[in-house]
Amino acid sequence: MTDHVYQKIELTGSSTVSSDAAIENAVAKAGQTIKNMRWFEVLETRGYIDNAKVAHWQVTIKIGYTLD
Amino acid sequence: MTDHVYQKIELTGSSTVSSDAAIENAVAKAGQTIKNMRWFEVLETRGYIDNAKVAHWQVTIKIGYTLD
Amino acid sequence: MTDHVYQKIELTGSSTVSSDAAIENAVAKAGQTIKNMRWFEVLETRGYIDNAKVAHWQVTIKIGYTLD
Amino acid sequence: MTDHVYQKIELTGSSTVSSDAAIENAVAKAGQTIKNMRWFEVLETRGYIDNAKVAHWQVTIKIGYTLD
Amino acid sequence: MTDHVYQKIELTGSSTVSSDAAIENAVAKAGQTIKNMRWFEVLETRGYIDNAKVAHWQVTIKIGYTLD
Amino acid sequence: MTDHVYQKIELTGSSTVSSDAAIENAVAKAGQTIKNMRWFEVLETRGYIDNAKVAHWQVTIKIGYTLD
Amino acid sequence: MTDHVYQKIELTGSSTVSSDAAIENAVAKAGQTIKNMRWFEVLETRGYIDNAKVAHWQVTIKIGYTLD
Amino acid sequence: MTDHVYQKIELTGSSTVSSDAAIENAVAKAGQTIKNMRWFEVLETRGYIDNAKVAHWQVTIKIGYTLD
Amino acid sequence: MTDHVYQKIELTGSSTVSSDAAIENAVAKAGQTIKNMRWFEVLETRGYIDNAKVAHWQVTIKIGYTLD
Amino acid sequence: MTDHVYQKIELTGSSTVSSDAAIENAVAKAGQTIKNMRWFEVLETRGYIDNAKVAHWQVTIKIGYTLD
Amino acid sequence: MTDHVYQKIELTGSSTVSSDAAIENAVAKAGQTIKNMRWFEVLETRGYIDNAKVAHWQVTIKIGYTLD
Amino acid sequence: MTDHVYQKIELTGSSTVSSDAAIENAVAKAGQTIKNMRWFEVLETRGYIDNAKVAHWQVTIKIGYTLD
Repeated sequence: MTDHVYQKIELTGSSTVSSDAAIENAVAKAGQTIKNMRWFEVLETRGYIDNAKVAHWQVTIKIGYTLD
Repeated sequence: MTDHVYQKIELTGSSTVSSDAAIENAVAKAGQTIKNMRWFEVLETRGYIDNAKVAHWQVTIKIGYTLD
Repeated sequence: MTDHVYQKIELTGSSTVSSDAAIENAVAKAGQTIKNMRWFEVLETRGYIDNAKVAHWQVTIKIGYTLD
Repeated sequence: MTDHVYQKIELTGSSTVSSDAAIENAVAKAGQTIKNMRWFEVLETRGYIDNAKVAHWQVTIKIGYTLD
Repeated sequence: MTDHVYQKIELTGSSTVSSDAAIENAVAKAGQTIKNMRWFEVLETRGYIDNAKVAHWQVTIKIGYTLD
Repeated sequence: MTDHVYQKIELTGSSTVSSDAAIENAVAKAGQTIKNMRWFEVLETRGYIDNAKVAHWQVTIKIGYTLD
Repeated sequence: MTDHVYQKIELTGSSTVSSDAAIENAVAKAGQTIKNMRWFEVLETRGYIDNAKVAHWQVTIKIGYTLD
Repeated sequence: MTDHVYQKIELTGSSTVSSDAAIENAVAKAGQTIKNMRWFEVLETRGYIDNAKVAHWQVTIKIGYTLD
Repeated sequence: MTDHVYQKIELTGSSTVSSDAAIENAVAKAGQTIKNMRWFEVLETRGYIDNAKVAHWQVTIKIGYTLD
Repeated sequence: MTDHVYQKIELTGSSTVSSDAAIENAVAKAGQTIKNMRWFEVLETRGYIDNAKVAHWQVTIKIGYTLD
Repeated sequence: MTDHVYQKIELTGSSTVSSDAAIENAVAKAGQTIKNMRWFEVLETRGYIDNAKVAHWQVTIKIGYTLD
Repeated sequence: MTDHVYQKIELTGSSTVSSDAAIENAVAKAGQTIKNMRWFEVLETRGYIDNAKVAHWQVTIKIGYTLD
């Protein structure tokens, strides 16, 4: 496992359901084009408010994946 | 939409249910006196522990709203 | 309540279920050896990805407890 | 001048012209309701992009003013 | 005690005596208009120098108080 | 607008004219290959000095764009 | 003195008297079980407010001590 | 170009005109006594407010120069 | 050299030899697909431990390169 | 008062008495060679421990002074 | 591997040889009392200077290990 | 040893050999004009890349020395 190189990309996922779901959405979207995703790190949690309720959650993450 | 000015206030919401619910509670409370709330940003997630369980979640957020 | 001294330890809990559950797991584990736990603070939220899904959540927290 | 107390509020100004103008707009807006404003500090500079150009600048500042 | 919401405001207190006194001054001033203040957090300690001595201390704090 | 996923990239633009122009240059360059750019955030402002003058401004930004 | 290894622990001391005394209290408490304490670093200064006065100071420090 | 050593100094420039001009002023002033200045980095942007307008801009920078 | 635009990518290199070698490995890997790499910045140094020894070093860097 | 340029230097003062006195000592020492000192900012508070007591306080500050 | 809990401790290792060796020394020392160490993260690199040379390197790390 | 005052300066050393050597070079250079240097702290590690290899390392440090 030594001497691997990983790249990290930064994505913002959103969801009307929960902060965790916003992360899941970002990971699922990234999986359409990136293979070998290994881990994520949360950078920032925000959201839009509509009518005094959280309308949707927005979570910015970094995703690390193995470079072939 | 240009040249708007937004004010941000900082609130700590708490909930016995979840960290997301603590945010929802803070947003709902703020909505009793503030109109035109637009977004929130999470600053800090904490909580109180009782008998080795999370007794309640405390999430500090900033809320941005449009100044009329 | 004055003049108490608190110690803080840093733990990373993990869970296949949710980020909140990762915190609950860390608190429960710490409760097996530490009494008088009072609060926690979230330092970092990460997770491992498997097959384009969040395989498990990892949340690093500090736990504060009263020194006898 | 000793023993004054200052309050700080956080505002986000926007402008189609420049980042400095976004600050000026926030200060001018705050001046409609706050007297004795003394200084500002820039917290964050962002902006919206439209058609590969900066559509408007958004600068978040803190403004400090003397409490009477 | 669950499900309370707290608001935080940011103040800078000053004092010719000490850094602690600058905090006390800010808290006392805030108490003239805010009820139910619960805690403060120090953000920044500065001061003005006159003739190679500290002329007055300036400490910026956040104060958290319970929203009714 | 819910459930969108955004990617962020990090660019450093430079300009002999101004710090704002360095941002404009980075946004314009990115627009040659990226569609649906939505916002930017300034990370760092630097510059090179020649003969005691600012020779060119260098501003590092993140640009967020919608993933199709 | 070379090749020593130091461990750091994190403590929060409190005092009704002053912020310095809160640090002294944490150091004294740690000295009941830890030998060879060498230095401390202040991480955070907070406090509880009662009746518009600082009821007690809470200072979080790291203490470094030599591992035998 | 290898094995050079650079020193950095920290300056705050001010200007009634713009934030960029505050930087230019600091660089010009430093140039009166320092040779071989190479780059600057912005640390903080502040300003004084007078009558609800920005009276002057204050930008704190680090300047790096080659040690002979 | 003015008005260039640089892109930054974030990579984590690993090595069983040293922290510097982990950086060299990341740079070499990136060089297989990216031309005109100009500089790197270290973001984080970590590593895996096996049997009380550093099994491999992991260094996360940003690499800046000129956009053609 | 416009268009002044200030230089900042970084000093660590120490004192056996208190954290405030450590700052006073640093300011007094700097005053032996620097004229026109205007303000200070606290960067870090540390101290050495001897026999479970604070042996001396060490506070690192930046001092700003007007360049003639 | 799910639902593990890890504890992190903070150590400062020193070495007359190199910054990497300071880390190795801290890990080796910790291994005398802690089993199941998994990873480390570098927090700070410092050192003492004697006669214009680095006399010894001091690197502060966090070590994560599995709680049984 | 009490009541000493230390000044810190910020230097960037470079080396074609290693990151540690870049620090050694900065310390050696500073020793040509500064006496009584006591410690250094690493602020940032960067480097220039040439032909997909690290051409030289650049490490920015603060050096603390005793004021006579």
